[in-house]
Amino acid sequence: MFQEMFQDPLVIAGREFGSRLVMGTGGADNLAVLERALRASGTELTTVAMRRMDASGGPGVLELLRRLDIEVLPNTAGCRGADEAVLTARLAREALGTNWVKLEVVADERTLLPDPVELLDAAEQLVDDGFVVLPYTNDDPVLALRLEQVGCAAVMPLGSPIGTGLGIRNPHNIELIVSRASVPVVLDAGIGTASDAALAMELGCAAVLLATAVTRAGDPERMAAAMRAAVTGGRLAHLAGRIPKRFWAKASSPELDYVG
Amino acid sequence: MFQEMFQDPLVIAGREFGSRLVMGTGGADNLAVLERALRASGTELTTVAMRRMDASGGPGVLELLRRLDIEVLPNTAGCRGADEAVLTARLAREALGTNWVKLEVVADERTLLPDPVELLDAAEQLVDDGFVVLPYTNDDPVLALRLEQVGCAAVMPLGSPIGTGLGIRNPHNIELIVSRASVPVVLDAGIGTASDAALAMELGCAAVLLATAVTRAGDPERMAAAMRAAVTGGRLAHLAGRIPKRFWAKASSPELDYVG
Amino acid sequence: MFQEMFQDPLVIAGREFGSRLVMGTGGADNLAVLERALRASGTELTTVAMRRMDASGGPGVLELLRRLDIEVLPNTAGCRGADEAVLTARLAREALGTNWVKLEVVADERTLLPDPVELLDAAEQLVDDGFVVLPYTNDDPVLALRLEQVGCAAVMPLGSPIGTGLGIRNPHNIELIVSRASVPVVLDAGIGTASDAALAMELGCAAVLLATAVTRAGDPERMAAAMRAAVTGGRLAHLAGRIPKRFWAKASSPELDYVG
Amino acid sequence: MFQEMFQDPLVIAGREFGSRLVMGTGGADNLAVLERALRASGTELTTVAMRRMDASGGPGVLELLRRLDIEVLPNTAGCRGADEAVLTARLAREALGTNWVKLEVVADERTLLPDPVELLDAAEQLVDDGFVVLPYTNDDPVLALRLEQVGCAAVMPLGSPIGTGLGIRNPHNIELIVSRASVPVVLDAGIGTASDAALAMELGCAAVLLATAVTRAGDPERMAAAMRAAVTGGRLAHLAGRIPKRFWAKASSPELDYVG
Repeated sequence: MFQEMFQDPLVIAGREFGSRLVMGTGGADNLAVLERALRASGTELTTVAMRRMDASGGPGVLELLRRLDIEVLPNTAGCRGADEAVLTARLAREALGTNWVKLEVVADERTLLPDPVELLDAAEQLVDDGFVVLPYTNDDPVLALRLEQVGCAAVMPLGSPIGTGLGIRNPHNIELIVSRASVPVVLDAGIGTASDAALAMELGCAAVLLATAVTRAGDPERMAAAMRAAVTGGRLAHLAGRIPKRFWAKASSPELDYVG
Repeated sequence: MFQEMFQDPLVIAGREFGSRLVMGTGGADNLAVLERALRASGTELTTVAMRRMDASGGPGVLELLRRLDIEVLPNTAGCRGADEAVLTARLAREALGTNWVKLEVVADERTLLPDPVELLDAAEQLVDDGFVVLPYTNDDPVLALRLEQVGCAAVMPLGSPIGTGLGIRNPHNIELIVSRASVPVVLDAGIGTASDAALAMELGCAAVLLATAVTRAGDPERMAAAMRAAVTGGRLAHLAGRIPKRFWAKASSPELDYVG
Repeated sequence: MFQEMFQDPLVIAGREFGSRLVMGTGGADNLAVLERALRASGTELTTVAMRRMDASGGPGVLELLRRLDIEVLPNTAGCRGADEAVLTARLAREALGTNWVKLEVVADERTLLPDPVELLDAAEQLVDDGFVVLPYTNDDPVLALRLEQVGCAAVMPLGSPIGTGLGIRNPHNIELIVSRASVPVVLDAGIGTASDAALAMELGCAAVLLATAVTRAGDPERMAAAMRAAVTGGRLAHLAGRIPKRFWAKASSPELDYVG
Repeated sequence: MFQEMFQDPLVIAGREFGSRLVMGTGGADNLAVLERALRASGTELTTVAMRRMDASGGPGVLELLRRLDIEVLPNTAGCRGADEAVLTARLAREALGTNWVKLEVVADERTLLPDPVELLDAAEQLVDDGFVVLPYTNDDPVLALRLEQVGCAAVMPLGSPIGTGLGIRNPHNIELIVSRASVPVVLDAGIGTASDAALAMELGCAAVLLATAVTRAGDPERMAAAMRAAVTGGRLAHLAGRIPKRFWAKASSPELDYVG
């Protein structure tokens, strides 16, 4: 029965994943470090930037992922408009033989925040074209709902801008998104440390996606293990149902009456 | 090498514990629930209130802990002055054959906060009497240092008042305590959910002590497993070294150059 | 020289306002209470919902505002799409003889959050039609910039959803918006109490817009005076330049050397 | 009636003060700057460190305060034990002809935090000796109550350590202190900017004491005016009664029915 607690797969578009931690490959110093981190993370799904992928020839990341039996989720990182993102997604489908895509359409380099109009446009086009679309979005509950309505298979709001490590700046928005979503909500971007990942799961997210919080940590392998544990802990806490918050103290000892 | 990451015992007064989660027994509905929660928590050290223990006769909590091979840490919960706490500690030593004690000297019932003067007095007396003293204290960095100076084997500051579930109200104070302590700092009281426990460890605490966050959760067994994972995650993150926080975004993709 | 500190007008689209507090009229119990609150607030600009205005006949709010010499800023509250909002703005221009409009295009009743796509569309149409457009927007730094680029005279991000009183949920986003804006940033929605208003100004906002935080407070007149003082305090603090935050303490006494 | 709102004197030990902002003199660059800041602050009570005062001969701070008709509250800044603080208080009484004292007994230089045991001891001695004692304390609700019980005329908990500018790290503790105190609670230390001061008052504090937040600000005079406004704003908001916080939005427009 204890083991049952951990039988709790993430399901996106009908596919099951044993891990609720999705790890990006960006930011790693080299493939050996990345491999150890990926193993420690327990991830079964990894996102890889397509913009540079076409330039690749040799072994590299894709071969590593194949060897580790980790699913590849191509992303459109660096794309600035709907057209560029749609084109990149199609190239990825061609090159990698998957119709899944993490859709990123950023507005500028300083914030790397999504452009809401272009993102929604690209999502609609890609859904129509048969893609399983996982959009990286800001934490606007309205946009999250719109993305679901045009047929996205999940919505992936940020906690804070990419690479800032600021954690979840607005838990209220994440709760609003979760409370109205009927597709999985994946917290994507901004995670800095383990407690951030745990909090995301406690707020009701179905999974956490992160990259540089692991790949640029002092010890990436150890941080990958930390994130794995924190995602598990946050998920279990969400399912277990936490105690309410109180203003005044409440002793635990009175309940000790059963002792003896 | 991966397994080495988890060889990271908690050491208090020269004794090693494999788990950094210390679980109290207070608040459990019955022994069966408590047993499942204790097992799921992985704890190797448990605190038990002495005030009612002397009334016990039959099997109960102590037998359970013996069966699970979990060390008993008697506490002086409910004691209001130094004298009462010292007396209770001595009775516990007599009854349980241990000179370890979790020292609690509370000031009143509404806050269950420690009385700093009585606590320090009791701690000094018990250290002089040969006890290994683990005091439950407020989050005052000065009092924490005083408790260490009189010979306590650890200091156990609260995150927030007992049973409130408010988490760590003042991380700055916990950081101040950790930065000056040369004994283990154990976060004790106020934990509400898994991310609170992870944060405690990230701030540099050596362990987390909690009871009702697990025993009064909707599903205590699952919450115990959550806390176990969160403590592990927070500890690993602390050791791994998190990324710095930034105001502006920072892309992960440029570092993808090694691809191919 | 002391009085000069308070010569610090808010300038929007070339017009000066002596007060940086803009008060909405919504939520007031009756006109007498509203009048006292408006007077206490010191506001020189007030927003009024147009949707019901056309049904009005007698004296009412508009006459009150005329009497108090407060400028009317009609808003499109309750409008759900760009077309409806544009039509409402035009009716307001017709009825009130002003080409200023607070543009609201909400997505749904539960969140009252703006619809980013419809908002941007409406803003563009109204700017083209010669309006001075002050859009109520979410706290997305990208959308704020887009609104400025299509010609809005100010951007008015929320602190949190309308009527929640949750204050500024994401100060980081407000700072990002302020740091890139070349039009005034007005914090609009979510203010619950005086310190929220002060914080908005400290983050660099040019003004604060609120309604129910005053009109539904226990004592609206007193809360209006509170908000007035807090906006002034926050603005002065922003201009004065606060001390940096430190981890360790820093005594003030060493600098007392000049004594004597 | 509007003016009545501002008839709300601070009363300590039977004496009335028109301003709820108490400004310390520490940290000022020179007397001219200090004078402008004191005037802008509107303070009627100022705290001055005694340790260096005895070395003073010429005009200096005391003459300035006399000229501005500001009451002097000598403090025992820099004292490390009860005896030293008691002696300093007596010297101050002798030198300045006042039996009021701001009691500071710090534990160490890095945190400048009060030593709870020495502070309580000194407070008791000084009360017995006829002093009106205003103790600077940490934010421990137990110690605050003890200080009141030994006869202190007010309790002055910190928001965060002296000079850190970290604001109120633990609002919950301040609320606990306020909810049980029957003497005025004065927030002392840690204020960084205007919204911190407003928050202190909203939590129910009777006054705010600060020094370096003003004296070391970029523009001390302007920051003094900011603090004055913020304290007023926070106080009025506290008395007015804020709106409740809500998870979902709540429109103000439905209440506009009275229009017309």
